[in-house]
Amino acid sequence: MKQDAPYTSIDQTAAWPALRTIPAERLADCLDAGRVQRRQVPAGGGLTYSYAAMDVSDQAIDRLTQAATELGLIDQYRSVLAGEVMNRGEKRMVLHHALRGAPAGPVVVDGFDFTAFYAAEGQRLYRFAEAVRSGRLKTAAGASFVDVVQIGIGGSDLGPRALYLALEQHARSTGSLKLRAHFISNVDPDDANGVLAAIDPARCLFIVVSKSGTTQETLANEALVRGWLQERGLDAARQVVAVTSQTSPLAHNPAYLDSFYIDDYIGGRYSATSAVGGVILALTLGPQLFQDLLDGAAEADRLALEHDPRRNAALLDALLGVFERSVLGRAATAVLPYSQALSRFPAHLQQLDMESNGKTNRRDDRPTVLPTGPVILGEPGTNGQHSFYQLLHQGVDIVPLQFIAFRRNQTDHDPAFEGSSARRKLNANLTAQIVAFARGKPDADPNKAFSGGRPSSLLVGDALDGRALGALLAHYENKVMFQGFAWNLNSFDQEGVQLGKKLTQQVLAPSGSGDSLLDAYAGLTGAV
Amino acid sequence: MKQDAPYTSIDQTAAWPALRTIPAERLADCLDAGRVQRRQVPAGGGLTYSYAAMDVSDQAIDRLTQAATELGLIDQYRSVLAGEVMNRGEKRMVLHHALRGAPAGPVVVDGFDFTAFYAAEGQRLYRFAEAVRSGRLKTAAGASFVDVVQIGIGGSDLGPRALYLALEQHARSTGSLKLRAHFISNVDPDDANGVLAAIDPARCLFIVVSKSGTTQETLANEALVRGWLQERGLDAARQVVAVTSQTSPLAHNPAYLDSFYIDDYIGGRYSATSAVGGVILALTLGPQLFQDLLDGAAEADRLALEHDPRRNAALLDALLGVFERSVLGRAATAVLPYSQALSRFPAHLQQLDMESNGKTNRRDDRPTVLPTGPVILGEPGTNGQHSFYQLLHQGVDIVPLQFIAFRRNQTDHDPAFEGSSARRKLNANLTAQIVAFARGKPDADPNKAFSGGRPSSLLVGDALDGRALGALLAHYENKVMFQGFAWNLNSFDQEGVQLGKKLTQQVLAPSGSGDSLLDAYAGLTGAV
Repeated sequence: MKQDAPYTSIDQTAAWPALRTIPAERLADCLDAGRVQRRQVPAGGGLTYSYAAMDVSDQAIDRLTQAATELGLIDQYRSVLAGEVMNRGEKRMVLHHALRGAPAGPVVVDGFDFTAFYAAEGQRLYRFAEAVRSGRLKTAAGASFVDVVQIGIGGSDLGPRALYLALEQHARSTGSLKLRAHFISNVDPDDANGVLAAIDPARCLFIVVSKSGTTQETLANEALVRGWLQERGLDAARQVVAVTSQTSPLAHNPAYLDSFYIDDYIGGRYSATSAVGGVILALTLGPQLFQDLLDGAAEADRLALEHDPRRNAALLDALLGVFERSVLGRAATAVLPYSQALSRFPAHLQQLDMESNGKTNRRDDRPTVLPTGPVILGEPGTNGQHSFYQLLHQGVDIVPLQFIAFRRNQTDHDPAFEGSSARRKLNANLTAQIVAFARGKPDADPNKAFSGGRPSSLLVGDALDGRALGALLAHYENKVMFQGFAWNLNSFDQEGVQLGKKLTQQVLAPSGSGDSLLDAYAGLTGAV
Repeated sequence: MKQDAPYTSIDQTAAWPALRTIPAERLADCLDAGRVQRRQVPAGGGLTYSYAAMDVSDQAIDRLTQAATELGLIDQYRSVLAGEVMNRGEKRMVLHHALRGAPAGPVVVDGFDFTAFYAAEGQRLYRFAEAVRSGRLKTAAGASFVDVVQIGIGGSDLGPRALYLALEQHARSTGSLKLRAHFISNVDPDDANGVLAAIDPARCLFIVVSKSGTTQETLANEALVRGWLQERGLDAARQVVAVTSQTSPLAHNPAYLDSFYIDDYIGGRYSATSAVGGVILALTLGPQLFQDLLDGAAEADRLALEHDPRRNAALLDALLGVFERSVLGRAATAVLPYSQALSRFPAHLQQLDMESNGKTNRRDDRPTVLPTGPVILGEPGTNGQHSFYQLLHQGVDIVPLQFIAFRRNQTDHDPAFEGSSARRKLNANLTAQIVAFARGKPDADPNKAFSGGRPSSLLVGDALDGRALGALLAHYENKVMFQGFAWNLNSFDQEGVQLGKKLTQQVLAPSGSGDSLLDAYAGLTGAV
């Protein structure tokens, strides 16, 4: 496929006219135990994708498969893997898959081997992490480091934070948890000050993460932290590490203890498996656990090469989501992990999905005629059951659900109470919810009647370890990528953030903006 | 207004036929500095509600005002305050306003003074909190307590947690932060084990919060914690406190160090200003700061009695939201606090709003003909700008925005960087976003074009202190209540959670459920 191939949108396929008329399948009629057995696909890392409770008929899946072939979704994925310029607006390659393997061979462009470069940076950060974890690399006072604070925002915060929380208890249980991780993201100084109040200044490493080296929030927080260290007589150059691109002002800069590199081909929301996530995760959880995560992601990436959606979990999830959004018109999707460790994983997916596909301009520079990326929300179960599930069960709009679950705990202490372990209770709740949402239940009291017909999918694994988490992460990255292809969007840029940045500079300009509306709001908020 | 008054829905008012035809106002045309000055209402606690950037015309607001009068929204609020049975399905009064004052006089029913009862429980918990904070009440080993862990789920978790985080830095700055707060909510044992790994068992108080004393998750977590204490030779009866109703199994029970009471008239999602939030907030932040919060909430409650929406921020916010949802058809609403301290406030509002109004059955037992409560999502700014704002700016669907901001920090350390403090940068970003969303910007490159017309409101205050937070909390409680009245919903029950509970019991039943579908899913997740 050429760089300038005329990509199309699913509504332009021959499959579409039939597809768009297919109604939602009635789950109360079709969902049974046999369907649960039939509708399962391996998703990598020991995960299984179950789509029994999706209200998409086999007939619809056949049509979606036809559309996927017409659109060349797997070919487009192979173009990504081959280093073609798939982020066309910004004229960039999209190389995050190369961070964790070479599912279609190494990416070598103009003689430069990106796969080898990322692997070498990975090995370098592992050595750094081992030096800190073992105590060989010491503080200025000769002590070992105990805390590490990541300073970054957006993809430099959400993914790494979600992954750290996802594996913290696992690493504690297996003895690999060494340093404690903290995160400073918001330009609100209460964020940085709150984190700094909880750490020992002399025994803390800081990681400044900014690909361009120009992110306003991150530089402001770095300056705040450097001042704070200086006031305490500490040398920031011995405690601050950079993750950036080789062309940024932070690169090759003696103000940093060390620097690790990414490049413009690693988008922020796709950077968790680069040094952006790697430095803090290898420091705290250990290089081996981070490598497990990369291996799980690589496995999911390989599985995503399969052409038949019924054998390709990411592709199938993508197509079912397109059907929910663009045929059935459903505006939002909820991500509901039955795992407290995944408490911030929905926030990461919110960025991944909404920033990638929350767009109206297609790659052919025409406006989309279909609804594109949905609103993403989510909190862990069972917590959500005691919160917003009311609307999911009995609200006006149907919100497709994405459940995530594991058969085992990350921690050992799980005494039985009233005849069952907490793990069994947790997963019994999940089971019950899937069935309740799908089937509903009539009741003479309309207040207690459940209409059912609320679709859900389930990603289920044995335990949330490094491999499973890596596969989970890559599953969603690839799902979002396939959806972008199907809608003919560029899922790899984010032009929607630029206008706000420009207007912010106007407000901050010393001479005033000359825009009375900006002034009026700035007066209201004190930003003058 | 009688208990059995035939309430109606806004689509049944005389105002509706005209109202429903009014289009969104074009913000690019009408939003100017004068409108910012005109469209402001005090919201209590020093907060101002700015609705200049809402795309609802004066004509529409006139019609909404007419509808509010026809529906008797303020009369219905007064019925709540008078102790009428406004939660009709469950045949209960709705008394959370009485927790913080008596805006329409004390609530006395059958000779029992609820206002006095709640106030007395408040004073009792203040004395308990002071005894712990001062070190008069000691651990078994004679030390002072340093940590406090709340065990609760849903409203016993989300509101208290959001409020604690909202005031933690403020309390640290003012010297009133004494104990550290932690929260265990999920039945996933990794949640409890993760929290327990971070505290000193001998110096920790636990608060078990369950109104009924039968909440599955909370009892399982309590059992886990009691076992954990016992294994360490500690006496749980000296470290565990209960917040419950007087009729629950936890009440008047020597297994607890002390107990504080609420009743069936305080709904979970409306309980943050009761002992549910009060015990942990008074212990950690101090009774005075919790009292400030109550005072701020009481002020907002009083302001919400005003009949004219243009002078009643909660009522106006409610009506504008009904217009967005039911006239303009917008499915989701984003809550975007430009304050890191409010990081979990959107999660609280998600429960408050979606559990209250995510319903289709009206109070007259007919199905709603209008879209009712929206999906709620949100994260703090500026973080969200680097995440899901892409969809908010350039996505297909318009998502109305609710900004929250403050003129000052909670913490002191805010050095200037590149010519401005972080606070100024934060609020300059907010200002820029409001204007960018509203006005948009044409561009020859369709990828860089912003259509604008994305409405937002702003709640802005001087600083996030106890009073401002109390008013903010009550503002949203009252907003959601008025919206429920306008849609003729019972905003105070949550029947949508019951079916899942029943099916969970079937999965957990030792004899098996006899439901092969449940078995199939239980087999998949290991919940067998």
